[in-house]
Amino acid sequence: MINKLVEKIQKMDAPVVVGLDPTMKNIPDYIIKKAIEEYGETLEAAAEAVWEYNKGIVDAIYDIVPAVKPQIAMYEQFGLEGLKAFKKTVDYCKSKDMVVIGDVKRGDIGSTSESYAIAHLGRVTVGSKRIAAFDEDFATVNPYLGTDGIKPFVDVCREEKKGIFVLVKTSNPSSGEFQDRLIDGKPLYEIVGEKVNEWGSDCMGNDYSYVGAVVGATYPEQGELLRKVMPKAYILVPGYGAQGGKGSDLAHFFNKDGLGAIVNSSRGIIAAFKQEKYAKFGAEHYAEASRQAALDMIEDINSARK
Amino acid sequence: MINKLVEKIQKMDAPVVVGLDPTMKNIPDYIIKKAIEEYGETLEAAAEAVWEYNKGIVDAIYDIVPAVKPQIAMYEQFGLEGLKAFKKTVDYCKSKDMVVIGDVKRGDIGSTSESYAIAHLGRVTVGSKRIAAFDEDFATVNPYLGTDGIKPFVDVCREEKKGIFVLVKTSNPSSGEFQDRLIDGKPLYEIVGEKVNEWGSDCMGNDYSYVGAVVGATYPEQGELLRKVMPKAYILVPGYGAQGGKGSDLAHFFNKDGLGAIVNSSRGIIAAFKQEKYAKFGAEHYAEASRQAALDMIEDINSARK
Repeated sequence: MINKLVEKIQKMDAPVVVGLDPTMKNIPDYIIKKAIEEYGETLEAAAEAVWEYNKGIVDAIYDIVPAVKPQIAMYEQFGLEGLKAFKKTVDYCKSKDMVVIGDVKRGDIGSTSESYAIAHLGRVTVGSKRIAAFDEDFATVNPYLGTDGIKPFVDVCREEKKGIFVLVKTSNPSSGEFQDRLIDGKPLYEIVGEKVNEWGSDCMGNDYSYVGAVVGATYPEQGELLRKVMPKAYILVPGYGAQGGKGSDLAHFFNKDGLGAIVNSSRGIIAAFKQEKYAKFGAEHYAEASRQAALDMIEDINSARK
Repeated sequence: MINKLVEKIQKMDAPVVVGLDPTMKNIPDYIIKKAIEEYGETLEAAAEAVWEYNKGIVDAIYDIVPAVKPQIAMYEQFGLEGLKAFKKTVDYCKSKDMVVIGDVKRGDIGSTSESYAIAHLGRVTVGSKRIAAFDEDFATVNPYLGTDGIKPFVDVCREEKKGIFVLVKTSNPSSGEFQDRLIDGKPLYEIVGEKVNEWGSDCMGNDYSYVGAVVGATYPEQGELLRKVMPKAYILVPGYGAQGGKGSDLAHFFNKDGLGAIVNSSRGIIAAFKQEKYAKFGAEHYAEASRQAALDMIEDINSARK
């Protein structure tokens, strides 16, 4: 799957992923209104609105953006109905040949991590059958529990030719609270980065590993260092746009081959119609606004990496 | 909810939680067979088997065990059907007046952590209504992203009078890889423990905070230290039984009031019928075996804390 991701990024010349993180605040009113008219003020209505909204965005961007990253929390808050919309979104994006990164930030130990890996990337055994549950292409994983928590994911990735992105240095303001603390003179994120390298060393695609990393756009200096620490890890870069990261900050997240990083924007793309810059599209044409914002983002990122 | 948990522990004289972590390997064959006869080799069949199995255990222990801890990964691997069984289990345990600790190990940043908190402990807004999704009483939370990731959970806990257990020192063999690393002479888990204290200081129940901690039974020395670092945090202690932790290791996880810790056992209770000690019950009476194993565990823990 890492090979497919790299190929799609090269073909579209777009190292960009769109975060499908729908909230009731960002979905145009007319979509919510229609769903509530049909299903009442219920979780089903919310899930229907989420799905309609997502579908519009995906239809508008699938030919220019290689990947999507649905944030499962945004669906989980609507319970089972929300998770139905998550699964429908995953399947729909895959039918459009987009690479799907499940932003699930799971992580536990041993057999429990294995179950999470199976849930999102693998297949579960029922009787004589092996059945996929959520079936994303990649998942994000939390490293706090150490190798025991990561290894089961790596094993499933190897078997299914899928991938993970391990949280290394996150984009949020307080990420330094633990991640920046010095251990024998090195920040914790660097030590985690070294482990990412190690975990990924025996499951390589053509040029990059099945095991990637998450490093926030809001920390360009750390990005530059981590790029060197994990030369074979694809870096998933959140924090661009709404969180404050700029294209010009991102040059050093890429390798000299112009590859090695994929930059995420969520609100900046999916709620583009709410920005002054794209307001002319209007809420009814929110998806066209998203397409234009994606094109602008691709140009911004490409000017930084080339 | 922390008050209710403490009261139930005192009333039942049982600082014990049973981990409802069903796997196809542990569910008695006759239950799986019946479900497959009805639903075929499908995720629905697996979910039905999980639910039947759980219900049997809950019916057998609800009057002697104050709390359950369903591990959501074990349900998530069966996709939407599995999560339906999770929700059904949560609701059923609550109807039996058990305290439900959702072992979800979620954690993200800002609005995303808020969505997870809403999903598991709070209520989501749809139109003019506020609707609960999974609605557990407590959730486990991963601290790697720092205060930004925890604060939204604490806010929801305060509003809903619910609680969280933050991962501090996990029970697995590789937990030391990052958690034990020394920072200014202190291990990372101690620094996280100090933060737990801080996060929990302004949302107190009668004697204990809404913000608790996870510390593995397999690390008794660390448990003793962390007990002092976080005097007001209830400690959820995994790793007893199948993972190797013994009752005699646990004395120092408790405060002098005999409170402050709740010990989890999963396989040791729910798959007791597979152990030689309880084999006489037979698979058909797996729930009675679980009850006996729970009684034995309570006795073992109580002999350590008194």
